[in-house]
Amino acid sequence: MDNLHRKIIIEFLSKYAPISKELEEIILEHSGIKTLSKGEVILQEGQVSKECFFILKGCVKKFHLIDGQEKITAFYTEGQVVTPNSYTDGKPSKYFLKTMEETIALFGNPDSEKEAMSLYPELASFIGLVTEKLIVDITDEFDTWVNHTPEERYILLNQERPDLIQRVPQYQIASYIGIKPESLSRIRKRLTN
Amino acid sequence: MDNLHRKIIIEFLSKYAPISKELEEIILEHSGIKTLSKGEVILQEGQVSKECFFILKGCVKKFHLIDGQEKITAFYTEGQVVTPNSYTDGKPSKYFLKTMEETIALFGNPDSEKEAMSLYPELASFIGLVTEKLIVDITDEFDTWVNHTPEERYILLNQERPDLIQRVPQYQIASYIGIKPESLSRIRKRLTN
Repeated sequence: MDNLHRKIIIEFLSKYAPISKELEEIILEHSGIKTLSKGEVILQEGQVSKECFFILKGCVKKFHLIDGQEKITAFYTEGQVVTPNSYTDGKPSKYFLKTMEETIALFGNPDSEKEAMSLYPELASFIGLVTEKLIVDITDEFDTWVNHTPEERYILLNQERPDLIQRVPQYQIASYIGIKPESLSRIRKRLTN
Repeated sequence: MDNLHRKIIIEFLSKYAPISKELEEIILEHSGIKTLSKGEVILQEGQVSKECFFILKGCVKKFHLIDGQEKITAFYTEGQVVTPNSYTDGKPSKYFLKTMEETIALFGNPDSEKEAMSLYPELASFIGLVTEKLIVDITDEFDTWVNHTPEERYILLNQERPDLIQRVPQYQIASYIGIKPESLSRIRKRLTN
């Protein structure tokens, strides 16, 4: 693993909980890196995936197909964790995951995770802390979505994830904030004036 | 702790991961139960709370005050876990938590949790599994909300949490699904016909 990737992993993890040098080594040793090309489907609706992953570089969209239309519910970028429902409940996926760019990610599966946790109790309590904080992040995102209009969501997205606006086509941003591309064009025009 | 409460706790936990008899005892020994009266404010906006809780009996609403109006983003009932953001990040709460009924809950705090996890590695990996599955549940709820109209949300709520429709005043259900009480009345009338 190169130094840049090590740095992204450790920076992400230490944001959530203090991490010792030993734990750092354990995590890096037990991790598998894959590079995915742009436009690759990682997970299909109906498919059962036993892999979760952590994005080191790149962008992945999550979407449902509703009446043949993509409804995007998330864009995952550097430093974000993606845990498909089938990873934990073993049921077929309700949604698709597809790369928007070439994406480098760290992959894990529940068996190796359980094995590593039983070998290293320190790792288990660390994962517990990280996932608890992720719950808070996801809940916050949900509240923000529910409590704002699409225009406000667009303004917040510009403030909080300005890179996303540059990386993702406008019609996909529109899908994500819950409006038609024409409405987003109007919002953008209004905000520029 | 009485038998009914023990049963609710164990049933909830074993839904998420296999639980041994010893672990059952560890969890029950380290748990503190409180009874809250109806209408009690558990958490205020701006307040820092270091307690998370698990509902054994009762109902708690979560809401933001927006221009003096309550915007409800969750109703928590039996078997649900409530982790305020301040529990994990120590920052002031962005929302209120208030009981809708007399509520009996199991309370925990991060210090005792960390202590118990370091004493019992088995507990740490168990908490890791439970919280990972909670992430999937919360993400599912978010997707459902985003991908449906208020009318569809009301129909789903009737199917998935029929008890809630009985327990909670209609104007609060309206706030939760994101519409005005008058609009919910129209939806209900349409669905009855």
